[in-house]
Amino acid sequence: MAEPLFRRLSLIGIGLIGSSIARAARAEGLVGEIVANARTEATLATVRELAIADRTERDPAKAVEGADLVILCTPVGALAEVTARIAPHLARGAILTDVGSTKQSVIRDVEPLVPQGVHFVPAHPMAGTEFSGPEAGFAELFQGRWTLLTPLPGSDEEAVGRVERFWRAMGAMTARMEPGHHDRVCAIVSHLPHLIAFTICSTADHLEQQAKEQVLDFAAAGFRDFTRIAASDPTMWRDVFLNNREALLEMLARFTEDVQAMARAVRWGDAAYIEESIARGRKIRRALIEKKQA
Amino acid sequence: MAEPLFRRLSLIGIGLIGSSIARAARAEGLVGEIVANARTEATLATVRELAIADRTERDPAKAVEGADLVILCTPVGALAEVTARIAPHLARGAILTDVGSTKQSVIRDVEPLVPQGVHFVPAHPMAGTEFSGPEAGFAELFQGRWTLLTPLPGSDEEAVGRVERFWRAMGAMTARMEPGHHDRVCAIVSHLPHLIAFTICSTADHLEQQAKEQVLDFAAAGFRDFTRIAASDPTMWRDVFLNNREALLEMLARFTEDVQAMARAVRWGDAAYIEESIARGRKIRRALIEKKQA
Repeated sequence: MAEPLFRRLSLIGIGLIGSSIARAARAEGLVGEIVANARTEATLATVRELAIADRTERDPAKAVEGADLVILCTPVGALAEVTARIAPHLARGAILTDVGSTKQSVIRDVEPLVPQGVHFVPAHPMAGTEFSGPEAGFAELFQGRWTLLTPLPGSDEEAVGRVERFWRAMGAMTARMEPGHHDRVCAIVSHLPHLIAFTICSTADHLEQQAKEQVLDFAAAGFRDFTRIAASDPTMWRDVFLNNREALLEMLARFTEDVQAMARAVRWGDAAYIEESIARGRKIRRALIEKKQA
Repeated sequence: MAEPLFRRLSLIGIGLIGSSIARAARAEGLVGEIVANARTEATLATVRELAIADRTERDPAKAVEGADLVILCTPVGALAEVTARIAPHLARGAILTDVGSTKQSVIRDVEPLVPQGVHFVPAHPMAGTEFSGPEAGFAELFQGRWTLLTPLPGSDEEAVGRVERFWRAMGAMTARMEPGHHDRVCAIVSHLPHLIAFTICSTADHLEQQAKEQVLDFAAAGFRDFTRIAASDPTMWRDVFLNNREALLEMLARFTEDVQAMARAVRWGDAAYIEESIARGRKIRRALIEKKQA
């Protein structure tokens, strides 16, 4: 096993992603010590039962003391507040990074609070499941998945490189991207699909209540897959939607136009249009399989 | 192994569903002989290679001769034409059934053509995968899945019962339903989810072409699941959309309203509305898990 990349890792928030980092970092010997922080004592008790951290710490300010790597793993809506709490306690030379699904908002909320001498490296592991909490994490979560980094113009190159090495050592592929570009790409590949899955489940729920339509009894393949996506953590996704508003609304507008065009084709029996839209979907699927992302 | 339920099964169309019926019916000893019909000689050659039928027959009229069970397994848009072809050749006392995803349109297209003395029992196995063709089928496809039957007021009770026994023997659960009710339930649990999956993939494809947005490189979990649904057979789904127009357009209208309400909540930062919508999705998921449909 190689020399640890960091002496002390502090995880601020330890749900699905934080606890997967703890497991993977320990499995790969990437850190000397792991300190876990959570909002509730119950979560920390679970972390102790799971024995995935060396120490649990209720106070985020204490959790970051002496850490050379601090990873913010809370929902993005909580980052401004928690960063304000920990900022005065960050060690000089420490690297501060995050796992948020939106990057412009994280930079807006976190960067102004980062003290001199601390290196802030915004990052986003594109991995997850529909489960949440520290018991849902596993060491292999990031294997073969992308972690996108959106360094700032003044970011310390060595710090960025160390964060990249950390993610690669956990099995992830890494890429650098401009924050606005990141937010647009994630709006279409992740945020919009989740919003749609939540919405169709909500539509079905209303229908079942109103018309007793036996939606649940006969949930077929298509709908079942949507409910799986829709089971993801509500707080996390609420924050993502609110913090990637512009890009999400643009993708939603494009999608809504396309849905209306499909509705029109169904109404008027435009078989050619429907077939062409379906064929586009197949094309994307085949391309994903070729890229081994499927 | 029990006495076969039918002497000769004729499958008109032998793709994913038809070939799965052939495999399951043979595995369970439900039929004495299986005759497979397909539109192209290439498909029949595949069927012979797979050895899943006792006989292949290019002419549907010949394929149904002497069969006591005929199952229509073509896309629903082709049923009127193929039924007209086979009707004069159906054996007296034969049961004619289908596997179409829409039931009002199938009854409209098929029922008037069914000769006296032949029992027509509309049915819909709610099972499938994103793959198509005779090589994609497997004997276990229907196990634990619903097959919905929509008998007509004048349907022969014994014939309906025999079709139910046939499906149950292949591992399916069966239920009877009024055709219009069937079409509404399937519009929300299956047809709308597929239309949406096709559409979002099409939206993403346009975006990638137009803006070089690297959609495919970073396809995250949500989007990947949608592309899987969207890989389903284009002809089948085109026909389903066109043949369940009224119910699909109504569900699409409900969904579009709900999407617009979500867009509004995102724009105005209505966190409570977003959370409530997400919570509804989770509720549906939990209910599905309790019903063991997930």
